[in-house]
Amino acid sequence: MSSEPFKVGLLGHGTVGSAFAALLAERAGEIERFNGRAPVICGVLTRTRGDFEEILDGAELIVEVMGGIEPAREYLLAAMCAGKDVVSANKQLLSQHGEELFGVAREHDVHLRFEAAVAGAVPVVRLLEESLAATPIERIHGIVNGTTNFILTRMVSAGDSYAAALHEAQERGYAEADPTEDVTGADAAAKIAILASIAFHTRVHTDEVAYVGIDGLDLVDVEHAAALGYPVKLIASAMQVDGAVVARVHPCLVEPDHPLASVHGAFNAVMLRGRSIREVILEGPGAGGEETATAVIGDLLAVIGTSGTGFLQHDGYYRELGRLPHAELRSPFYLRFEVDDEPGVLAQVAQALADQQVSVAQVVQHSGEGVHIVILTHSAREGSVRAAAVAVAELSFSRSAPVVLPVLERSE
Amino acid sequence: MSSEPFKVGLLGHGTVGSAFAALLAERAGEIERFNGRAPVICGVLTRTRGDFEEILDGAELIVEVMGGIEPAREYLLAAMCAGKDVVSANKQLLSQHGEELFGVAREHDVHLRFEAAVAGAVPVVRLLEESLAATPIERIHGIVNGTTNFILTRMVSAGDSYAAALHEAQERGYAEADPTEDVTGADAAAKIAILASIAFHTRVHTDEVAYVGIDGLDLVDVEHAAALGYPVKLIASAMQVDGAVVARVHPCLVEPDHPLASVHGAFNAVMLRGRSIREVILEGPGAGGEETATAVIGDLLAVIGTSGTGFLQHDGYYRELGRLPHAELRSPFYLRFEVDDEPGVLAQVAQALADQQVSVAQVVQHSGEGVHIVILTHSAREGSVRAAAVAVAELSFSRSAPVVLPVLERSE
Repeated sequence: MSSEPFKVGLLGHGTVGSAFAALLAERAGEIERFNGRAPVICGVLTRTRGDFEEILDGAELIVEVMGGIEPAREYLLAAMCAGKDVVSANKQLLSQHGEELFGVAREHDVHLRFEAAVAGAVPVVRLLEESLAATPIERIHGIVNGTTNFILTRMVSAGDSYAAALHEAQERGYAEADPTEDVTGADAAAKIAILASIAFHTRVHTDEVAYVGIDGLDLVDVEHAAALGYPVKLIASAMQVDGAVVARVHPCLVEPDHPLASVHGAFNAVMLRGRSIREVILEGPGAGGEETATAVIGDLLAVIGTSGTGFLQHDGYYRELGRLPHAELRSPFYLRFEVDDEPGVLAQVAQALADQQVSVAQVVQHSGEGVHIVILTHSAREGSVRAAAVAVAELSFSRSAPVVLPVLERSE
Repeated sequence: MSSEPFKVGLLGHGTVGSAFAALLAERAGEIERFNGRAPVICGVLTRTRGDFEEILDGAELIVEVMGGIEPAREYLLAAMCAGKDVVSANKQLLSQHGEELFGVAREHDVHLRFEAAVAGAVPVVRLLEESLAATPIERIHGIVNGTTNFILTRMVSAGDSYAAALHEAQERGYAEADPTEDVTGADAAAKIAILASIAFHTRVHTDEVAYVGIDGLDLVDVEHAAALGYPVKLIASAMQVDGAVVARVHPCLVEPDHPLASVHGAFNAVMLRGRSIREVILEGPGAGGEETATAVIGDLLAVIGTSGTGFLQHDGYYRELGRLPHAELRSPFYLRFEVDDEPGVLAQVAQALADQQVSVAQVVQHSGEGVHIVILTHSAREGSVRAAAVAVAELSFSRSAPVVLPVLERSE
């Protein structure tokens, strides 16, 4: 294995670019450990500094996170013509000039990868392009714009008007000062054009994707829909029926038991349907500097990792780690004690928990055949909870071994 | 490009093996189109027919879907020693003998791939092994056994006892005649051992995964939990804290807003957490012949596809397809008409819909500033719904343009 660094030229140094540079530095050692080469950034181009030609000369791979059509297009074409692999997070460029870009990539036999252009940290491009490349996909439905999903979630949960929810999104950094691309559906249209192209193995240009955004959506319709039990989501859809395709973006009511109905806030999710896979859903953060940068690094690994037979086989992949004892894990717990119906039982159960510093959140007593005391604890050390359960089991009123089940919290 | 077929030896011809053989035949042309080589099965080994040595001699890649430790282990080792790439769906083998198998794969520089061993059509192995190879993962929580999730869903939805729900699962083909591996948690333990190993870059052996199944679970606890608002799920967890790891399987109450709470029936889902990705969730069918065979084909593509720079760049990837007009798409619709408060309005709206053969499922009239007639239709042709809305807009009582939003159905 070579120990020469893998040189990466970085075009763009905004939110994603700077997060990428920081992450790459943080993980270069790890990547070197199982790949043999540490990636390093050999040059950065911003609006005010850096020279493209010089960066290109020194780099083996170009990462483009500058956005916009030009000069991004020109730079990527030049890089590929020079035989360099490229990774881009630029959805507008890919959805408008994909055919040209892929043609040049093919001609020069270089990688053109773009996971970060579609759904941030949600690896749907890779799934479609690799694992499912030979699997017919019939339909795609996605929430692929985090800004609008945040706004819609906010309209329901806080009863905000569209304008107020947009303002809140801007305050929190989920929407840009000029939110046009997001709220009109243009951003989602570019993304579904890319997804439809890969999934259906055909060129779907962003210009042919009809889109309606949420900028014209009235709070009253969100409220009427909620009263009927339906959330409103901005859905990007593409389907293929009998050799014909269609792709579009529009606000939809979503049936409450649909997996996309429960995708809240700035998250993205994509559902793929096809006979062989039935339905596969991927969900995760759709934006954010570090999340998007993670997708860029995934693409970079795909490029530098192709010389071998997979990372798992590299000597350096595995390392020795210690073991964590179960007793030290913490979570809330569900406890059920089956007890005789006599005075003072609950007090003794509570005391046994208190003796182990286990704090009680909720108690319900069920009477039927035998009395069941059901307790939900606050987050507690598992060892302490089990010790308390054993102590209760030894008391004379206990009829059977206590039931102890952990609670998986939302934050877990 | 060579036009020689890519020869695959198949070990095992049960549910997955026969589905794989059928799918591969169906898709061989498609794979040849963008890869240049059509995969063909050159030999099948079952308990009663086929000769391993002969199959190995003729094959470039071995697919092992026979299950069990021996002779599967012996065959895979022999195949890799002979320089053949291998794809396996055998979780027990991988989780118990992974170190040995990966050592031999490394030594002979061959692929050893096993997506189908973990979560069927849910591509979590590929995600961890490739896209996220350099991304620190802190926690994994998964529902990785479809049989037990079906049984638990059934206990809640139908109030079945464990035994009755198991019987139902067996009737529907979701549980085997001997369900021990599934219901005791042993199957999930093997899978989380594999996932933890890849995610944390360390060897986690299945023997060190403590597991509790659902075979000892009392319906009364499922009911008490439901009364508190929590579903009970068999959760496979692994976490890494300060350089120490732990992996386990146990029934847990799941907080109702946790993404795993809404994974129903025989589905699998895996949630990955880490600083850079926050939370990424993958969900899909965890078992089934065709679903699992799809994962095997994905692995096969990873092996035969590595000579180029990705399928997207292959000439044959893209094809021409027709376009589907929006007007012909069908779904239920939400309609809102803002109208004057006068007699006969609802009748005229209903008539306009009837004129277009649009059938009404639900009508709600809201009075406030102006009267809102909100209608949910049954599934209808979009063109007809929009024509009806235009007809209503032209009536004298209409105060503003009708609002038309599609409803995304659960089955979409």
